[in-house]
Amino acid sequence: MKPKKPSDSRTIMTDLVLPSETNPLNNLFGGELLARMDRAASIAARRHSRRITVTASVNHVAFNRSVPLGSVVTLEAAISRTFRTSMEVYIDVWMEDRLSGERTKANEAIYTFVAVDETGKPTAIPAIEPETELEKIRFDGALRRKQLSLVLAGKM
Amino acid sequence: MKPKKPSDSRTIMTDLVLPSETNPLNNLFGGELLARMDRAASIAARRHSRRITVTASVNHVAFNRSVPLGSVVTLEAAISRTFRTSMEVYIDVWMEDRLSGERTKANEAIYTFVAVDETGKPTAIPAIEPETELEKIRFDGALRRKQLSLVLAGKM
Amino acid sequence: MKPKKPSDSRTIMTDLVLPSETNPLNNLFGGELLARMDRAASIAARRHSRRITVTASVNHVAFNRSVPLGSVVTLEAAISRTFRTSMEVYIDVWMEDRLSGERTKANEAIYTFVAVDETGKPTAIPAIEPETELEKIRFDGALRRKQLSLVLAGKM
Amino acid sequence: MKPKKPSDSRTIMTDLVLPSETNPLNNLFGGELLARMDRAASIAARRHSRRITVTASVNHVAFNRSVPLGSVVTLEAAISRTFRTSMEVYIDVWMEDRLSGERTKANEAIYTFVAVDETGKPTAIPAIEPETELEKIRFDGALRRKQLSLVLAGKM
Amino acid sequence: MKPKKPSDSRTIMTDLVLPSETNPLNNLFGGELLARMDRAASIAARRHSRRITVTASVNHVAFNRSVPLGSVVTLEAAISRTFRTSMEVYIDVWMEDRLSGERTKANEAIYTFVAVDETGKPTAIPAIEPETELEKIRFDGALRRKQLSLVLAGKM
Amino acid sequence: MKPKKPSDSRTIMTDLVLPSETNPLNNLFGGELLARMDRAASIAARRHSRRITVTASVNHVAFNRSVPLGSVVTLEAAISRTFRTSMEVYIDVWMEDRLSGERTKANEAIYTFVAVDETGKPTAIPAIEPETELEKIRFDGALRRKQLSLVLAGKM
Ligand SMILES: CC(C)(COP(=O)(O)OP(=O)(O)OC[C@H]1O[C@@H](n2cnc3c(N)ncnc32)[C@H](O)[C@@H]1OP(=O)(O)O)[C@@H](O)C(=O)NCCC(=O)NCCS
Ligand SMILES: CC(C)(COP(=O)(O)OP(=O)(O)OC[C@H]1O[C@@H](n2cnc3c(N)ncnc32)[C@H](O)[C@@H]1OP(=O)(O)O)[C@@H](O)C(=O)NCCC(=O)NCCS
Ligand SMILES: CC(C)(COP(=O)(O)OP(=O)(O)OC[C@H]1O[C@@H](n2cnc3c(N)ncnc32)[C@H](O)[C@@H]1OP(=O)(O)O)[C@@H](O)C(=O)NCCC(=O)NCCS
Ligand SMILES: CC(C)(COP(=O)(O)OP(=O)(O)OC[C@H]1O[C@@H](n2cnc3c(N)ncnc32)[C@H](O)[C@@H]1OP(=O)(O)O)[C@@H](O)C(=O)NCCC(=O)NCCS
Repeated sequence: MKPKKPSDSRTIMTDLVLPSETNPLNNLFGGELLARMDRAASIAARRHSRRITVTASVNHVAFNRSVPLGSVVTLEAAISRTFRTSMEVYIDVWMEDRLSGERTKANEAIYTFVAVDETGKPTAIPAIEPETELEKIRFDGALRRKQLSLVLAGKM
Repeated sequence: MKPKKPSDSRTIMTDLVLPSETNPLNNLFGGELLARMDRAASIAARRHSRRITVTASVNHVAFNRSVPLGSVVTLEAAISRTFRTSMEVYIDVWMEDRLSGERTKANEAIYTFVAVDETGKPTAIPAIEPETELEKIRFDGALRRKQLSLVLAGKM
Repeated sequence: MKPKKPSDSRTIMTDLVLPSETNPLNNLFGGELLARMDRAASIAARRHSRRITVTASVNHVAFNRSVPLGSVVTLEAAISRTFRTSMEVYIDVWMEDRLSGERTKANEAIYTFVAVDETGKPTAIPAIEPETELEKIRFDGALRRKQLSLVLAGKM
Repeated sequence: MKPKKPSDSRTIMTDLVLPSETNPLNNLFGGELLARMDRAASIAARRHSRRITVTASVNHVAFNRSVPLGSVVTLEAAISRTFRTSMEVYIDVWMEDRLSGERTKANEAIYTFVAVDETGKPTAIPAIEPETELEKIRFDGALRRKQLSLVLAGKM
Repeated sequence: MKPKKPSDSRTIMTDLVLPSETNPLNNLFGGELLARMDRAASIAARRHSRRITVTASVNHVAFNRSVPLGSVVTLEAAISRTFRTSMEVYIDVWMEDRLSGERTKANEAIYTFVAVDETGKPTAIPAIEPETELEKIRFDGALRRKQLSLVLAGKM
Repeated sequence: MKPKKPSDSRTIMTDLVLPSETNPLNNLFGGELLARMDRAASIAARRHSRRITVTASVNHVAFNRSVPLGSVVTLEAAISRTFRTSMEVYIDVWMEDRLSGERTKANEAIYTFVAVDETGKPTAIPAIEPETELEKIRFDGALRRKQLSLVLAGKM
């Protein structure tokens, strides 16, 4: 399998925040953002592996910014590091103010996906070669996060 | 108002085709694609105008390719030409095969949006300056399409 | 196959406009209406052909009226003309004001559907015989629209 | 207030049965049908009263027929009798087989709606005058059903 | 088959009332509550029978309390009596005020479910043994309700 | 403010896994489970605080078990520890096999919610007093997790 670049799997998902997704303060529910991030990340994971992929874990996520009704939210997901059958996906979330159009970072999160065959068994995936500075920093940090993730899941 | 470029409003919306959006052949309903295109185009129109925008018309749309359940569908919308309060939005649709990852053009469509104020009254928007060859071709064709659209709507 | 009448396929779909389908002005999204029209039209096409039917094209649609939250929207779809495997479906859209009950024409649109077998291959459908004056006018106009549609789709 | 006829409020709601509404046997959930019937009936009640209307009660409903995935389901709701602020709505449900197009009665149900003002207080509504034989039979039966409904609700 | 207790099938479904489920008075649609009750009851019926279960009938339901947007609604469903292949499910509905947290009974309803095999044929289910005082009262009343239900459905 | 017990906020949310929530292996999407857990946890947080509550963070979550289409999934959320304006919510997830009825632990997760007033400003909440052995263990672990969460969010 030929190695790939993070840009090969980069997935952009732009959408509105609708009334049915907001709490009594008219802000996006945290759970809705977690679900959108999972969908964007799973597409990135599939683009990298050309396999069915399943969510294996979600790293710690902090919500420092609320996202008001009517905002445009953009998610960018890309593979940051691959292992044998698993891969780390980094998701950056931006939001744009309706009037000023100002774009601010709302959030970021890290999910791990595993590529599986039609029976659900983990399968090997292509390697990744980071290119930009940021991609290299995320690649380097991923090994430590993988180990932490396995420890927290009681698998190491 | 400073003129803008098509790339300032470019909106990318990538998402999966889910079972609840498919017909008995397990292909995406045409209406679902029309609705997604409207959402992507309305975000592009808002990004260009920083106003509330409403759909004024949909140009002729042909569905030459069916889009199977489980596909990844990517919509790219961008302003192709502006008039005083209205703007033409071009939407290109690609789909990716689950296994091969092969990306093919599934469709394209052209919507017209109008920028309005909080009372729904049309408001002037910034001009646009096409940059790439394709953007210039679409810019040039837009005038004729605008006239055709007004004729078909019985307004000219 | 015995010819049918437009009234044999007439499909009426009445429903409310809910908050999750409206834009910041509290009006129905254009895309939602396009999706509802596709659903009504596909049922009309199925009633005429007793086949699975898929959307082949959408004629130019103009949105001259906004449809407020809480309105009752009624769609009436019927086959206006048949060809060999394809058929034109005319959709009329009315809305009713919540208080006055006043019913006004909100929109009309024309979609083309093709009848297919279980493998997606186009199949012949019964002919149509228009009865009312309006049905005859729409029948007559359909041939020209079919040609325009093929031209715009680059197939003629 | 001028009396109205049942046909003034007749509401037809035709739609497909989608995968997200079906049980493991691929048949429509009973609850989905109850919800659709409520929506159709509430539109009929609003058409008669030109008021906001709320569901006061649902008569006994029996489901003798299952409704398979992909069926076309048509609901017809109309006011069968009015009282001072409340009205009985009769809902007939038909389904069509995808292949044969055969249309069979799937169900019927009776809901009571009350017209209310913006504060939720019951308000008087126009009277009704049944026209057809069936409308007269339903009108006559309604008084007894109203009394039974109030008794069952512990209000009489 | 070993008899079971009502508590073996007790199903609790707590959820919020979201904007897309409310009428112009910002209260839950009756139809939405009917659908949620059907889902909770069908899970209780499945827990008792370990079979696919289908809704056979809904007893008379009265809505005396409106349920405002943002409320927390809790449904508790449990088998109240079993027959050969059918079983009665009792559903109690509570709502909690957002501010005071006060919990009030909003509603109750009775549905009948039938256990079926993969072809939809009714199959025998385990018996039930009521334990608490309330369970015994509901058990005793169920026989009369079953007969009434069959009479109303024209089956007895 | 009188201290409360974990059982005062315990929230049980039982529901089915529907086709529109599943991946190509017919298993629940991880993101859907994350969203359901957020909804259950936010209700528990509201029950404890009688305030609007917002998701502040999600601890590391591992998905070791896939959840098949048609499963019954039960979430149990309860406050495990309170701080001044924030509280930790523990969510346990069980799933039941359709046929055997066997109930297995599918997952657990920990979210932090903050109680806010109508302007979004954090407000003090009642203290909590754990009762059972498990509640005490979770209470004790929460302090360390809170500190870790703040460190990971760059707030400490
Ligand atoms: C959560 C939020 C209210 C905190 O506001 P803030 O200005 O940081 O307020 P404070 O510093 O006073 O913190 C308030 C409490 O939150 C806690 N907190 C803040 N960030 C946290 C984190 N990442 N993890 C755990 N606790 C956190 C603080 O420790 C403090 O707790 P305490 O009062 O019990 O000691 C604010 O960040 C916010 O509104 N975030 C967005 C929430 C949201 O909309 N979520 C969904 C996003 S889609
Ligand atoms: C419910 C259903 C399985 C009953 O099938 P049937 O051919 O009438 O079978 P039977 O006569 O053997 O009856 C089976 C049981 O259902 C009970 N039953 C049937 N109709 C009933 C009614 N209206 N009220 C109460 N119980 C009823 C019978 O009394 C019998 O109970 P028992 O075995 O415990 O004594 C069948 O009518 C059906 O499939 N209905 C559609 C269910 C559905 O899809 N609901 C959702 C519609 S959107
Ligand atoms: C329906 C409702 C408006 C009735 O209010 P009320 O205070 O009982 O008012 P009244 O006693 O004046 O009754 C008003 C009418 O409703 C009728 N009514 C009330 N309960 C009824 C029942 N269970 N069955 C039939 N009719 C009923 C009364 O007979 C009266 O009819 P009339 O004016 O035509 O003679 C009130 O109970 C309510 O708001 N319920 C909640 C509705 C709702 O939100 N439904 C969805 C729940 S999820
Ligand atoms: C993820 C899953 C496929 C792993 O299967 P497994 O039997 O543990 O397989 P293995 O031990 O061979 O692990 C496969 C890979 O997953 C990684 N992995 C497993 N659990 C992990 C965790 N919690 N965090 C990070 N990586 C993890 C392993 O390290 C291994 O990576 P590598 O091959 O790149 O070295 C399996 O646990 C699963 O199917 N989980 C459910 C997924 C799901 O349905 N998610 C949505 C739930 S709603």
